[in-house]
Amino acid sequence: MDLAVSVDTRGDRAAAIYRALLSALRDGRLRPGDRLPPTRALAGDLGVSRNTVATAYDRLTAEGYLEGRVGAGTFVTSAAASPTAARGRRKPATLRPRADWTYSPARTSSADERPRYDFRVGIPDAELFPFDTWRRLMTAELRLRANSPGSYAEPSGHLGLREAIARYVGYSRSVHAEVDDVIVTNGTQQGLDLVGRVMLAPGDVVAVEEPGYPPARLLFASLGARVVGVPVDAEGLDIAQLPERARLVYTTPSHQFPLGIAMSLARRRALLAWASERGAAIIEDDYDSEFRFTERPLEPLHSLDQTGRVIYAGTFSKTLLPSLRIGYLVAPPSLRSALRAARQLSDSHGPMAPQAALARFMDEGLLARHIRRASKAYAVRHELLVRGLAERLGDLVEPVPSAAGLHVAARLRDGMDIDTTGAVRQAGGEGIALDALPGYCAGAAQEGLVFGYGAVVADSIGEGLARLSALLRRAATKP
Amino acid sequence: MDLAVSVDTRGDRAAAIYRALLSALRDGRLRPGDRLPPTRALAGDLGVSRNTVATAYDRLTAEGYLEGRVGAGTFVTSAAASPTAARGRRKPATLRPRADWTYSPARTSSADERPRYDFRVGIPDAELFPFDTWRRLMTAELRLRANSPGSYAEPSGHLGLREAIARYVGYSRSVHAEVDDVIVTNGTQQGLDLVGRVMLAPGDVVAVEEPGYPPARLLFASLGARVVGVPVDAEGLDIAQLPERARLVYTTPSHQFPLGIAMSLARRRALLAWASERGAAIIEDDYDSEFRFTERPLEPLHSLDQTGRVIYAGTFSKTLLPSLRIGYLVAPPSLRSALRAARQLSDSHGPMAPQAALARFMDEGLLARHIRRASKAYAVRHELLVRGLAERLGDLVEPVPSAAGLHVAARLRDGMDIDTTGAVRQAGGEGIALDALPGYCAGAAQEGLVFGYGAVVADSIGEGLARLSALLRRAATKP
Repeated sequence: MDLAVSVDTRGDRAAAIYRALLSALRDGRLRPGDRLPPTRALAGDLGVSRNTVATAYDRLTAEGYLEGRVGAGTFVTSAAASPTAARGRRKPATLRPRADWTYSPARTSSADERPRYDFRVGIPDAELFPFDTWRRLMTAELRLRANSPGSYAEPSGHLGLREAIARYVGYSRSVHAEVDDVIVTNGTQQGLDLVGRVMLAPGDVVAVEEPGYPPARLLFASLGARVVGVPVDAEGLDIAQLPERARLVYTTPSHQFPLGIAMSLARRRALLAWASERGAAIIEDDYDSEFRFTERPLEPLHSLDQTGRVIYAGTFSKTLLPSLRIGYLVAPPSLRSALRAARQLSDSHGPMAPQAALARFMDEGLLARHIRRASKAYAVRHELLVRGLAERLGDLVEPVPSAAGLHVAARLRDGMDIDTTGAVRQAGGEGIALDALPGYCAGAAQEGLVFGYGAVVADSIGEGLARLSALLRRAATKP
Repeated sequence: MDLAVSVDTRGDRAAAIYRALLSALRDGRLRPGDRLPPTRALAGDLGVSRNTVATAYDRLTAEGYLEGRVGAGTFVTSAAASPTAARGRRKPATLRPRADWTYSPARTSSADERPRYDFRVGIPDAELFPFDTWRRLMTAELRLRANSPGSYAEPSGHLGLREAIARYVGYSRSVHAEVDDVIVTNGTQQGLDLVGRVMLAPGDVVAVEEPGYPPARLLFASLGARVVGVPVDAEGLDIAQLPERARLVYTTPSHQFPLGIAMSLARRRALLAWASERGAAIIEDDYDSEFRFTERPLEPLHSLDQTGRVIYAGTFSKTLLPSLRIGYLVAPPSLRSALRAARQLSDSHGPMAPQAALARFMDEGLLARHIRRASKAYAVRHELLVRGLAERLGDLVEPVPSAAGLHVAARLRDGMDIDTTGAVRQAGGEGIALDALPGYCAGAAQEGLVFGYGAVVADSIGEGLARLSALLRRAATKP
């Protein structure tokens, strides 16, 4: 590191360094608390003697801009802050996104303090995650160094992890995958992006569920696709209403997001037949089906598919933690090269050490153990939540039956007139975090509530629902 | 985890489990070496007694499909491999990329064994990286847990790292950045992708350097842009030849990739004036300017720019390691929200623990120390390489003067008739890894060679060049 100062090699070099540093202080490149390079290092960088640099530092120290701290180095003093100039020159705001870029960042869950009644949707319980084991595995991988080479790596991901995933989806989800069918991604979202990049031309029609998962809809739209919402009923996606020309159908058959419905076997077969007739592709997003409570799962679309039309997307964001940023696609060989190229063009490849650590985690049976343990905890919360909903809110909302995952949806009962979006906003002010169903609708708002139970403390469920019930009743009585 | 077997609740349940497991073995979902779930766990999952599962396991063990290993569990035997059926059914290759998707994955450097004479381009020396310190910092961050919450994080990256980067570019590169101007990316490539997503509509013209950095050109093309190559001469990008309608100019002014030229100050000013007149944006990719050997750097475009037209892209892939997968953009406030949204749509956000560890690494002055140390090692290799090129190959090629970075280019001298692409391929067979200049040309091939010295062992440089010299002379004499 060096100061980008230009020091004329003739004349008083110490004065030139002094002026350069002063200029850096004035325009905010050097700020209070910053440490300056050691005199020896700066002298080497600038090709001057150490004394010359020391002279400049001494002068600025005498003037109160810098201070030496014994054993720590030379620092910019707080007095050096220049209130008028410290922010630097402001440049005009000339660069703009393209005209049809209408996307704003969504609020992130980590921006909130943890709410008292935490029904936030889509996040697992970090308390259940075996951090000590994970740290042991990561440390071991970082010790190997083999996973941190100086070179660029295979875009489809760590070989050992792809092998572990191929086995895992095989026996946990009866999804048949060869190791080369697996592409490791930074979570499901990147998997959707890679498929979109590779398959969608501008104007192509993509069918998504309505209500559905907003980040998928927005992503496909941002890639130039025409996104059409297709209603979901008690059997899942309504195949009869799929747009005729859809090139891609994005669906969550195991546990519809956000309603929680499992797509019926008849619908699954109908969707596969539909895609086969039209030459369409299907993305099956199986984001949280590992947590099941009451019945055997239906076969994934991927297993039922005989025609190679299904791309299966999985993630460790729900089974483990979103902060791992690891998901995967199981894609047909005919897309393999294109998806690897898309990953390379997007971001070269992912970090290898966590992928190697996760491979070990799976190979040692620790993922299976974690899922069993977490499932038990979530089953308790699911049960408490469903029971509580019936008892406390049963006359206002009708829970959608669901047997898996980390959240439960409830539609407003007929005749009820509550602005659920407003009510949820109000609940947030009282320490109750949950989602309103209209937030998942691109078309006409469907009134209802979505409760996550991944992060909620079991003991707080009853109390949270009681408070929410009172709040909703107040909202309902106001005309 | 569970076996996706469907067990009829009536009838002989042990027999049903036996058949389901056998079917999983036959179609390759269970493979030799796989561990079966513990009987207790599978019994719980299936809602049967543990004895029922044990009966099924016992039968398969007796038949040679499974074996119990004391203290470890029940495993699929190697004899259980079914050569005819184990690969599972093959589905037809019906899914295809969009018609204009023409991209294939590039060969990755890690796919090679380390060559004996390692002049590979664009990779730093992993031997110089302080792995022990890095592991200590990572372990500390993983212990905190705060960086691995159950929730989703800010898409622009870890706050502490953005602060450290804002300071770093301020005093190492005189790039003025507020913390909110910094967006952490998975390396430079993702930074380019985010800018492209946000700014480019299909058909927009993007100007790139010719020869230039292929992943940038291919990325912008894959986003639907019309990419135009602009020649590079001894002063850098030839501004007079920029396409009139370019919306975006991608350039490497500090150390042109791959030629190594620094853009002259006159050209820098001309480029800024050009962009300001046309309303174009500039991406300044400053990928390896930290390693400088002989002269003071020119001011970055970002610092010279008064009109807010420059997006600055930096990376830790060269200063530290590509496997960290951490780079950054410094972007004007007018693009901030769009870039954050694009990052969220791409892959939500990056992993936080390595970002937090890197922030500490920078705050403790360890990055500065590492760069000083690495610069010394690279300066030695640069010197040996430049001298060796003059001595061994001076009559065949003309090295392009360069004062920074991790590679040196050399053009074939006038009158020389060597197919450098073929010669480089042949050199690879003799353990000499380097690049041919035509690989960086999208238009007419410019014959020449590109030598990386990030990974090369200093002692092997002379010998490698001697062997290459002999090989090129053989290639030159063959008509």
